[in-house]
Amino acid sequence: MGIIVNVTLSADLYIALFHHPVLNKHGRVVTSSVTNMDLHDLARNAATYGVQGVFIVTPSAVQRGMVSYIKDYWQGGFGARYNPTRRQAVALLKPAADLAEVCLTIKTLSGSEPLLVATSAKKQAKSVSYAHVRQLLGQERALLLAFGTGYGFDAQFMQLADAVLEPIRGRGDYNHLPVRSAVAIVLDRLVGGREEI
Amino acid sequence: MGIIVNVTLSADLYIALFHHPVLNKHGRVVTSSVTNMDLHDLARNAATYGVQGVFIVTPSAVQRGMVSYIKDYWQGGFGARYNPTRRQAVALLKPAADLAEVCLTIKTLSGSEPLLVATSAKKQAKSVSYAHVRQLLGQERALLLAFGTGYGFDAQFMQLADAVLEPIRGRGDYNHLPVRSAVAIVLDRLVGGREEI
Repeated sequence: MGIIVNVTLSADLYIALFHHPVLNKHGRVVTSSVTNMDLHDLARNAATYGVQGVFIVTPSAVQRGMVSYIKDYWQGGFGARYNPTRRQAVALLKPAADLAEVCLTIKTLSGSEPLLVATSAKKQAKSVSYAHVRQLLGQERALLLAFGTGYGFDAQFMQLADAVLEPIRGRGDYNHLPVRSAVAIVLDRLVGGREEI
Repeated sequence: MGIIVNVTLSADLYIALFHHPVLNKHGRVVTSSVTNMDLHDLARNAATYGVQGVFIVTPSAVQRGMVSYIKDYWQGGFGARYNPTRRQAVALLKPAADLAEVCLTIKTLSGSEPLLVATSAKKQAKSVSYAHVRQLLGQERALLLAFGTGYGFDAQFMQLADAVLEPIRGRGDYNHLPVRSAVAIVLDRLVGGREEI
């Protein structure tokens, strides 16, 4: 019943939640809204699994301002006193306008342009296994795991990705996990501790 | 890169989210509030992983009424037309007053009193491995996975449990996953498809 951690994290690992360019239910490219719950859940998932930063990506300056406002609330004043562990988690949040800004920030922090690994609820031409991405995490180059809100990334974004992580399968045809759950499961599968059996 | 599902689900699997008896940050037993996001996320997680029912447990009749209201909204009228997959997921939600009502409902549906497997962020005297619980799911008796909101179950509830699932470990000391994430990760570890490596 001991715990073994089977991935050496040589690379810096970042995650990003994109609100653009993502598809709506009609397959059109839209900008989705930032939601408060996503910020908290992704920050707490990231803090649990040793992720270096959580980019909240939207072209809307007002919504980026909202991310900063929520982050500041939990980092200073009442929020920080009320819940110190939340303070630790939200410190990881980084608003960004687009993929270029995310990559530039990671390059500044980590010294290397990150490998871009996108996620999708459907199998893609570039789909790779969890084992493959674990190997990438054992190397030197920073890795950015990208999650799309709404109905997922558009085709153009997928073309920019170095690889796409294979979809999460459950036990049937239902394929509508919340992005918050997908982030938690992907991090657990990639870098989580595994019990000794 | 194929997917293998390594657990035979002979037993019916249910999950329950308890809002009482749970601890607050000061270690006192309280009743926490039902939140809308928990209902949606747990229902979608359950639909993904083949769970038979999601009990939302609170002694507050008003809050159980709120669960029914939200469920009805997405099952009939505008909500059902707007998002048919949400309709399918929320159909799994079952408000209940307490553990006794949950167990009675499961006995009625499955024909057997369920085994009660609690979860905790800390190792407990009754902690068992995921492998152990997977074996239980291969047997005949229904299994109820219980999740506590707030700061987790009180000692009395833990005494009622047949077993406690070992805690989720990340990669450091931060141990404050959202219960929504914990449910997703536990279901994926217990009954999720695993990639062939």
